[in-house]
Amino acid sequence: MIMNKIYLDNAATTPVAEEVFEAMKPYFTNSYGNPSSVYTTAQEAAMAVGEARERVARLLGASSDREIIFTSGGTEADNLAIKGTAMALKSKGNHIITSKIEHHAVLHSCQYLEKYLGFEVTYLDVDKKGFVDPIDVKEAIRDDTILVTIMMANNEIGTIEPIKEIAKITREKDVCFHTDAVQAVGQIPIDVNDLQVDLLSLSAHKINGPKGVGALYVRKGSKLTPQMSGGAQEWKRRGGTENVPGIVGLGKAAELALENMDNKNKRIKKLRDRLISGINKEIDDVILNGPEGEKRLPNNVHFCFKYIEGESILLNLDMLGIAASSGSACTSGSLDPSHVLLAIGHPHEIAHGSLRLTLGINNTEEDVTYLLEVLPGIIQKIRDMSPLYSV
Amino acid sequence: MIMNKIYLDNAATTPVAEEVFEAMKPYFTNSYGNPSSVYTTAQEAAMAVGEARERVARLLGASSDREIIFTSGGTEADNLAIKGTAMALKSKGNHIITSKIEHHAVLHSCQYLEKYLGFEVTYLDVDKKGFVDPIDVKEAIRDDTILVTIMMANNEIGTIEPIKEIAKITREKDVCFHTDAVQAVGQIPIDVNDLQVDLLSLSAHKINGPKGVGALYVRKGSKLTPQMSGGAQEWKRRGGTENVPGIVGLGKAAELALENMDNKNKRIKKLRDRLISGINKEIDDVILNGPEGEKRLPNNVHFCFKYIEGESILLNLDMLGIAASSGSACTSGSLDPSHVLLAIGHPHEIAHGSLRLTLGINNTEEDVTYLLEVLPGIIQKIRDMSPLYSV
Repeated sequence: MIMNKIYLDNAATTPVAEEVFEAMKPYFTNSYGNPSSVYTTAQEAAMAVGEARERVARLLGASSDREIIFTSGGTEADNLAIKGTAMALKSKGNHIITSKIEHHAVLHSCQYLEKYLGFEVTYLDVDKKGFVDPIDVKEAIRDDTILVTIMMANNEIGTIEPIKEIAKITREKDVCFHTDAVQAVGQIPIDVNDLQVDLLSLSAHKINGPKGVGALYVRKGSKLTPQMSGGAQEWKRRGGTENVPGIVGLGKAAELALENMDNKNKRIKKLRDRLISGINKEIDDVILNGPEGEKRLPNNVHFCFKYIEGESILLNLDMLGIAASSGSACTSGSLDPSHVLLAIGHPHEIAHGSLRLTLGINNTEEDVTYLLEVLPGIIQKIRDMSPLYSV
Repeated sequence: MIMNKIYLDNAATTPVAEEVFEAMKPYFTNSYGNPSSVYTTAQEAAMAVGEARERVARLLGASSDREIIFTSGGTEADNLAIKGTAMALKSKGNHIITSKIEHHAVLHSCQYLEKYLGFEVTYLDVDKKGFVDPIDVKEAIRDDTILVTIMMANNEIGTIEPIKEIAKITREKDVCFHTDAVQAVGQIPIDVNDLQVDLLSLSAHKINGPKGVGALYVRKGSKLTPQMSGGAQEWKRRGGTENVPGIVGLGKAAELALENMDNKNKRIKKLRDRLISGINKEIDDVILNGPEGEKRLPNNVHFCFKYIEGESILLNLDMLGIAASSGSACTSGSLDPSHVLLAIGHPHEIAHGSLRLTLGINNTEEDVTYLLEVLPGIIQKIRDMSPLYSV
């Protein structure tokens, strides 16, 4: 098989940066100790985990590295935040508020609590650009509400939610607030103390770190029932031997993300806007999903193309060496249309014709030029075969 | 810091084998696709995950690779097996049977079910060598028993439990049987169809694979409620982007473990028996914990030394470049004596003076010779300072 020359699916996953891989390497075959052990080889590993924890804390503006819990990824961080808070605060109430466009790691965690632990969940609507209205959050909060969980940025359409405004409301009402920031970390500056969130999830492999590792920021004083029952690791909040190389990789990726944020995102935003205006200009009957400008993730482009199926676009792009997605990687293979596109008001037939292009550190102006060269022809070819389309 | 020259803590973790690391490498920076995506780069990753799944299935004698679910490690595999079965079968009953010497990943999962989901758990006693009596399992099974979980081999004292006999009983009574085989895999031959277990947990980093990845064998037809709520990965049984390099590493480690099992374990068993007879001969007032011979893990040596603290032995060994453990790495840092040593009948003061030496692929005759040379002096020196010890 040949590799995809142009990779435009950085929201699904990113290549591990060379510096990140170099940082991880010693912890596989040399400094392989179990950080919980007492001898030298193990203490080396424990120190590396500690350094990574400080780097992640720094990326988020956390007050202390004790507020960082390493997990096996963004999904586990979301599960821990939601189930952990729910189980810890069950005696206070059993109502949770979220939105209809959250990632499945959040939605399915909420459904698990409904099904197995008797929780009640309110799923808030969003507007046509994918925004949650803070007023809706305020009105949904009840006496028995114990948790609000709203994503920082949507993984499909790139909408950046008004997290600071929502956190202000939850704080006034004394309700715990979690945000799934898996897609936002590294893309936009995040300061947990400025935002005043209580819990925040992130994933390494979305910021040029390795797969299989993530973290949950947990504000000091937050109550959380561990979900990975076992040893006393991660301040007794997550059992299991630490994934030392993975954690070191996340630490390095966090450091690089902080260093490069401004330059990288200014450059990537330009590519994004070229893609958006190019597609709008060159192709008829398209709908840009999500907002334009500053409220959109700098690396996200997401369109619906009327009269066609997203899957055919992807296969045609792949034949030309371009990797892209119709939406969330986690739900591909399913024939259901995206719950996000339905929530912003698209009918099924429009939702099926979606294409997500997400930029990363390796993309260039040439990639954008090439995509804009080939995409109009691909869309036209597919439409010409579609019974829904007539010129 | 200098590295430990002699590593005798292979039950805590093992170095990643060179062949394993080489197999993992391409999946960090080159074949980095998300296996859930449709394009070429992603399908390469998906194929690598599939190959690893077949290798793990082969190591366990599983009938199909669909019976293998990848997790973030042994702890998550235990959590998924126990909580997942309990939640799936709650309508049938709410009683679980386990033993007092299980790993904390099992014990704390059981306690979670007691505390949050109204389950009742029977914790079986073991005999002085650490054996669970199958008759005790039989007598403990009630009409509402839905799960029996007994480890294949104990992580502290190396006792190999009568899993086949226990599985025969659970099968007759139509009760699901899980075994935590984290310490047994790679050490003793395992065939899930010969043993007739329904669920079996394993961890990569105990068999010279990477940290942060493990697997759960799930016999076809077993009911299991996913515990990592999210995407549709792992046959919809474990959400979250697959840790591709980690999974590839586990697959390679499984392949090597199967190839090398006989030779490796014959060699390691000889080293083990030299350590046991040497310590018995050279040092007074010692107690070998666990059985001798075939019912003991080939790589496990575990002694209590009267009148002293295990921690002092470890620090003295570390100064001479030897890495060892007082018991489970997951509970080190805690001042409580081992629950395993209390369960086999030791009083607190004896339980505190424990030393576990666990052998691995890199250990040599010279390592054993050196350990036997220095240990008697260390024990004598510590005893000379102990108020409990008089000549």
